Amino acid sequence: MAVPPSTYPSRLLPLFLGLFQGALLLFFALFVTYDEPSAQAEDTNLVANQVYSTFPFFQDIQVMLVVGLGLLLTFLPRYGFSSLTHNFLLLNFSTQWALVLQGLLHHFHHGQIRLDLHKLLISEFAAVTVLISAGAILGRASPCQLLVMATCEIPAYLASEWVIVTWLGVLDVGGTITIHIFSCYFGLGVSKALFRAVQQPLHPKETPTPSSDLMSLVGTLILWVFWPSFVAVLCQPGDAQHRAILNTLLAMSASAITTVVASSLLESDGKLSPGHLQNGSLAGGVAIGVVADMAVPPAAALALGSLSAVVCVLGFRFLTPLLGRKLTLHDQCGIHNLHGLPGILGAAASVVAVVVASKDTS
Amino acid sequence: MAVPPSTYPSRLLPLFLGLFQGALLLFFALFVTYDEPSAQAEDTNLVANQVYSTFPFFQDIQVMLVVGLGLLLTFLPRYGFSSLTHNFLLLNFSTQWALVLQGLLHHFHHGQIRLDLHKLLISEFAAVTVLISAGAILGRASPCQLLVMATCEIPAYLASEWVIVTWLGVLDVGGTITIHIFSCYFGLGVSKALFRAVQQPLHPKETPTPSSDLMSLVGTLILWVFWPSFVAVLCQPGDAQHRAILNTLLAMSASAITTVVASSLLESDGKLSPGHLQNGSLAGGVAIGVVADMAVPPAAALALGSLSAVVCVLGFRFLTPLLGRKLTLHDQCGIHNLHGLPGILGAAASVVAVVVASKDTS
Amino acid sequence: MAVPPSTYPSRLLPLFLGLFQGALLLFFALFVTYDEPSAQAEDTNLVANQVYSTFPFFQDIQVMLVVGLGLLLTFLPRYGFSSLTHNFLLLNFSTQWALVLQGLLHHFHHGQIRLDLHKLLISEFAAVTVLISAGAILGRASPCQLLVMATCEIPAYLASEWVIVTWLGVLDVGGTITIHIFSCYFGLGVSKALFRAVQQPLHPKETPTPSSDLMSLVGTLILWVFWPSFVAVLCQPGDAQHRAILNTLLAMSASAITTVVASSLLESDGKLSPGHLQNGSLAGGVAIGVVADMAVPPAAALALGSLSAVVCVLGFRFLTPLLGRKLTLHDQCGIHNLHGLPGILGAAASVVAVVVASKDTS
Repeated sequence: MAVPPSTYPSRLLPLFLGLFQGALLLFFALFVTYDEPSAQAEDTNLVANQVYSTFPFFQDIQVMLVVGLGLLLTFLPRYGFSSLTHNFLLLNFSTQWALVLQGLLHHFHHGQIRLDLHKLLISEFAAVTVLISAGAILGRASPCQLLVMATCEIPAYLASEWVIVTWLGVLDVGGTITIHIFSCYFGLGVSKALFRAVQQPLHPKETPTPSSDLMSLVGTLILWVFWPSFVAVLCQPGDAQHRAILNTLLAMSASAITTVVASSLLESDGKLSPGHLQNGSLAGGVAIGVVADMAVPPAAALALGSLSAVVCVLGFRFLTPLLGRKLTLHDQCGIHNLHGLPGILGAAASVVAVVVASKDTS
Repeated sequence: MAVPPSTYPSRLLPLFLGLFQGALLLFFALFVTYDEPSAQAEDTNLVANQVYSTFPFFQDIQVMLVVGLGLLLTFLPRYGFSSLTHNFLLLNFSTQWALVLQGLLHHFHHGQIRLDLHKLLISEFAAVTVLISAGAILGRASPCQLLVMATCEIPAYLASEWVIVTWLGVLDVGGTITIHIFSCYFGLGVSKALFRAVQQPLHPKETPTPSSDLMSLVGTLILWVFWPSFVAVLCQPGDAQHRAILNTLLAMSASAITTVVASSLLESDGKLSPGHLQNGSLAGGVAIGVVADMAVPPAAALALGSLSAVVCVLGFRFLTPLLGRKLTLHDQCGIHNLHGLPGILGAAASVVAVVVASKDTS
Repeated sequence: MAVPPSTYPSRLLPLFLGLFQGALLLFFALFVTYDEPSAQAEDTNLVANQVYSTFPFFQDIQVMLVVGLGLLLTFLPRYGFSSLTHNFLLLNFSTQWALVLQGLLHHFHHGQIRLDLHKLLISEFAAVTVLISAGAILGRASPCQLLVMATCEIPAYLASEWVIVTWLGVLDVGGTITIHIFSCYFGLGVSKALFRAVQQPLHPKETPTPSSDLMSLVGTLILWVFWPSFVAVLCQPGDAQHRAILNTLLAMSASAITTVVASSLLESDGKLSPGHLQNGSLAGGVAIGVVADMAVPPAAALALGSLSAVVCVLGFRFLTPLLGRKLTLHDQCGIHNLHGLPGILGAAASVVAVVVASKDTS
């Protein structure tokens, strides 16, 4: 079933993508407009302020997804170019697809969808789920399989997000539950479905080299630097956003140090594992998302960051090999360790935070 | 005539650059000052707001030109370091030279030129033309030849910009015509003049390797991410700037997907060509510049992005080999496909947009 | 005495780091809180404005330190991954350590330290000194030795900063004296202490390759682009900040060109030395820091940038070999040429500027 990733299956890919792009064009021509021009000087200032307050965050997130995540995936040597390309293609395809679906579901008024930067940002958040899930089958799925996955995952994400945020009323500014946990288990499901019983032999291209590990670490560092923007962009301006930035910075700093501790304790020769560092440093960012803008004490952010790094490194060391052996579950990038486990930890922390807060106020 | 690029011709380069730097210093000492200190608290707020609204855009553009464009040029293996260095040197030289000329032409009042961030930005826009033109002769021209080209191109750009913008009254916020089309044909002319009749044999250093293609793609992605800042920085704050950002994002997203479609249809084995991806993904950004802040519908931005990617890929596949054979025209980076053809497409689109708009209002 | 850098000495490193992280957690739990929630709508706007005016600068600086400086250090081939990792680890460790010490010294009121983005930024500035000093012993010191150095250097920095800024009243927005000069001589002292009399033979891993030089140059370019943010972030908003940005841009542009001049004049074959370019281009940024926000004329910024690049290149060519031979002083990255000499030049320039200014006003 698994098509070797490097051979694009004849003409299926351009046909599929071409039809999609044509349909999107038609949809935009019929239904999508820009916001009405601001009539007054006051409105102009308002729009300008919205642009200045959102656009720098938006650019940071674009760098994360296009450059940072792309580079992180290049740890498979000689497969780097495809990883970067597929990530880029999936981001664009998924964002456009999410723009259509979210427009139809939430923003369709009087036969029109008014496009603005905020709606584009929300669509990009939806696309992140696809990029994460793709990590489970990196290098094993063809571009067509990835696009089919994206086509299914975006509506599934929108449905699950509606259940979690609108129906259950969970607050999750950083997308810990709606993005990270969801996409992790979706991706693992896809991996299981595609490569069901096949115990895949290790391909020689799948052993990282020093040079590919270096590029991948640069990707990690770019993600690490801009992660606070990802968590804070949708927060209420003012204290909540300020707190979200600080909490994320603290959690990620604790993750970075704890990853070094955990990794060098676990490895028999006391040396750091590149894979641990590339993923563990980011675990705090995954976990903190759901509580980032709450009034949690700074120490809690540090503790959550440390704990999620420990969980992530332990996952790589023990759980991934176990899942591979027992369930023949293949998880190429270890998304279960970076997105699944720290996500669950963050969700648990948010329950604690809510309980404590309700006790404090009662 | 062509000096091998790696041997700096004796002492000509430092002499030329040293004299230039000395003359610039003298010019600055005699004529350039900073703006007067803001006398009142209100003015201070005004200056601060100008800094906060321009500086993030400015930094984005610096990243594009220094890191993004520099990396894009490293696709020639083992020539990467020189590409990056020459790009960096040309940017600094051309910006300083443009600062002098623009200061003398436009900002010379009472024997003084008052420097501010906006004037520096305008000079950097002028320098972009040199960086684009250099792509035509990358790896074949010596640093001295590149500097002579820069010395001539900056005044030519200022003249052509004056004709297009001031005299003909063309609106071109993103520099589609004034920067991209101009620099493309200027660069091709220089290439023709330098390597007139010589059918250059392919140098072994000029075949990209997987690793050099990867670095170059990273450059493309950096340019792709920050392109909206380049197009929107000189727009009117408010709706026009907001629209310019959205239009550019849509056009570039369409370009990215359409490039994959066009490239995998054209290549006989259905595989993506790295060169197509590195350039086609950016074609939409070139074309959209001239209409970005106009009230064009979002669908038009998508269509323009798709079309320019198609044109760019077709250019690489058919036109570049043809020009090389028939006109012995050497275009190392394919600037005609990335800047020339999409630029012409964008200019044509702007004519259509203006005609449609004038019909609507009449 | 020198432990080979690639073998983490058994369990010492995780023990030390783990204890530190635990102690930090305890300290935070006991003493650190966030600022009180803004009670009124006006306060919310104030906090939001502070976030929008500081955060983009903060992110720029994070990119510089984590990605830019990290990549700059990867010029030693096959040691790149460790350089990047140690830089990342040291940054996190030193920032946290500085946060504790600065909190205790300056911000301890009513048994509490109120954390905000500004305090985090100040701690990161302190951490920069450690990253610079580490350049002197890059690749020769073990992670544990680096951490011990960081533990001692942060309090030493805080003491010296107090003497220079508070006691002597020196204005130094860009940290020329407090950060660059201090960390340079601290690092050289540590290098001397660690590798006292040993004339280290050149390790084969210590000869840069074209590919490692390319990565390192990318690091330089990232630092070059974002340096104005580093210098300007702590300036008074308005004219002073505007001037600091412009002065830094001019100084660094002059440095870039002058480095090419100086390097190609000094090298016998007229070719550029990668090491000169990687360091000399940044020398102007080091020197300008102390006068950046003063009312110096633009020509002075250009002159200072040029001069510091000359001094830096001369230092690499003549002083470093001399110090190595005469004093057996090992300076792996040449921090004396990039931070020491241009720093002294900048300090001298600030004296001139102050004297001239006091004459003008008298």
